[in-house]
Amino acid sequence: MAVIIDGTAIAEKVRNEVRSGISDLVRERGEAARPSMALILVGNNMVSHNLVRMKARDCEQVGIIPRIIELPEETHEDALLSFIETLNRDDSVNAILCQLPVPQQISTKKLLAAIDTSKDVDGFTARIDADKTDIAACTPAGIMRMLREYDIDVKGKHCVVVGRSNIVGKPMSIQLLLHDATVTVCHSKTQNLSSFTKQADILIVAVGHARLITADMVKEGAVVIDVGMNYPEGKPVGDVDFAEVSKRASYISPVPGGVGPMTRAYLLKNCLELAKQYRR
Amino acid sequence: MAVIIDGTAIAEKVRNEVRSGISDLVRERGEAARPSMALILVGNNMVSHNLVRMKARDCEQVGIIPRIIELPEETHEDALLSFIETLNRDDSVNAILCQLPVPQQISTKKLLAAIDTSKDVDGFTARIDADKTDIAACTPAGIMRMLREYDIDVKGKHCVVVGRSNIVGKPMSIQLLLHDATVTVCHSKTQNLSSFTKQADILIVAVGHARLITADMVKEGAVVIDVGMNYPEGKPVGDVDFAEVSKRASYISPVPGGVGPMTRAYLLKNCLELAKQYRR
Repeated sequence: MAVIIDGTAIAEKVRNEVRSGISDLVRERGEAARPSMALILVGNNMVSHNLVRMKARDCEQVGIIPRIIELPEETHEDALLSFIETLNRDDSVNAILCQLPVPQQISTKKLLAAIDTSKDVDGFTARIDADKTDIAACTPAGIMRMLREYDIDVKGKHCVVVGRSNIVGKPMSIQLLLHDATVTVCHSKTQNLSSFTKQADILIVAVGHARLITADMVKEGAVVIDVGMNYPEGKPVGDVDFAEVSKRASYISPVPGGVGPMTRAYLLKNCLELAKQYRR
Repeated sequence: MAVIIDGTAIAEKVRNEVRSGISDLVRERGEAARPSMALILVGNNMVSHNLVRMKARDCEQVGIIPRIIELPEETHEDALLSFIETLNRDDSVNAILCQLPVPQQISTKKLLAAIDTSKDVDGFTARIDADKTDIAACTPAGIMRMLREYDIDVKGKHCVVVGRSNIVGKPMSIQLLLHDATVTVCHSKTQNLSSFTKQADILIVAVGHARLITADMVKEGAVVIDVGMNYPEGKPVGDVDFAEVSKRASYISPVPGGVGPMTRAYLLKNCLELAKQYRR
């Protein structure tokens, strides 16, 4: 049986680090240096509403000041972009997050490009030539931390990432390369997916397809990280068939209680890092 | 025997497209819209000197106005960055290139970050979430074009990239993912390199190691693209053992006359694309 990676426990450790990092920062530079995150919510999507409230509570728990900004469903793209421009210049906010998805009259690409890189707490504007010192997207950053916590070194390992999204798959592959892994990225157009997943020393799955990865697709002793969060029968289920794959893997992250809490915790960690670098 | 991919001929075709694109642009928007490229050269590196002269000649041949700016070896980082800032605001220049490497007192990362993305003709500031409409680094862009010219579709193919540089390996992997390939990136820390290269339907090598890839490392019928340019005995030699690998491959790019001319041509193509988008 695989060791079950305890994302909830590591996330708590990360939050404690952030809390104490914020105390240090405020002690050194005064209350004005306390991190503050703008959380922009456009429209009436209930899932987005709940996510933004949850993120705001997470902020409060570690000493980050959340500022929720709710904009109507029919907000024009131009209005949103100029509003972000105002936040870019606003010294009372050092981190900006715009909850996705946004209504269809707004280009996600333009929206993300409008957020000043120095305030991009989601890390979505990262460049291809980013190095280890740059802010990474929260999910890849959280996964790298999970691996470190269990002394799983990716150097020279074959890491297979299933999924090529801008939020997980692509930045994950960049992080793994920066840490000397050999990296394969698979996706919906990959032919014979299992021929790749079976090669993985470390398999990271982020596709949003309940139990796509079955035991026969995993090498004996592999490390398996499940980013998926699906609700096929109302309860959260990952992209990995946990019951069966956990019998073959050496380490496996569960759903819930795996990557999810790490992503949440790294949003706070990113906010602190941006605040440290921020010069008013 | 493999078909030899004629980079010189495709590059000529690209230059003709650029030439006619510039004519159209100038006809529509007037002489002020003619593309103009600033080529910054810091220090006394002879190879860099020659490269900058060559790029300036390439510009002239297609109707781009080159502006070479030579700065002394001892130029301070701050001075260079503020000079770039001036060029960013200078409407008479729509493309900025700073020849690498720069003297060691200057951070390459800061330098590249200083170039306005809308004038970044090398495409080095590309973001992880770039899409097909964004400017790509010249070498990956040139390679994608070579493949298209020979009707080699990367969709669903396993593409193995050897090398993870910010200039070739990483942006190449992003381009291949955008075109639906399954992508593996190998590098100096990869264990058992040949186990990966042998799987490649399309193998792209960019490591700067003469004849690293031998025939036994290549699958029968693979497409092999050689980005290397080494001078072990004074004459240019690629990263691939051309004489032997060309017997197994279905297509192969030679050195010289393969990727090199494509990289040069795509610098001009990128300059035209930036000029089209440029709004004074």
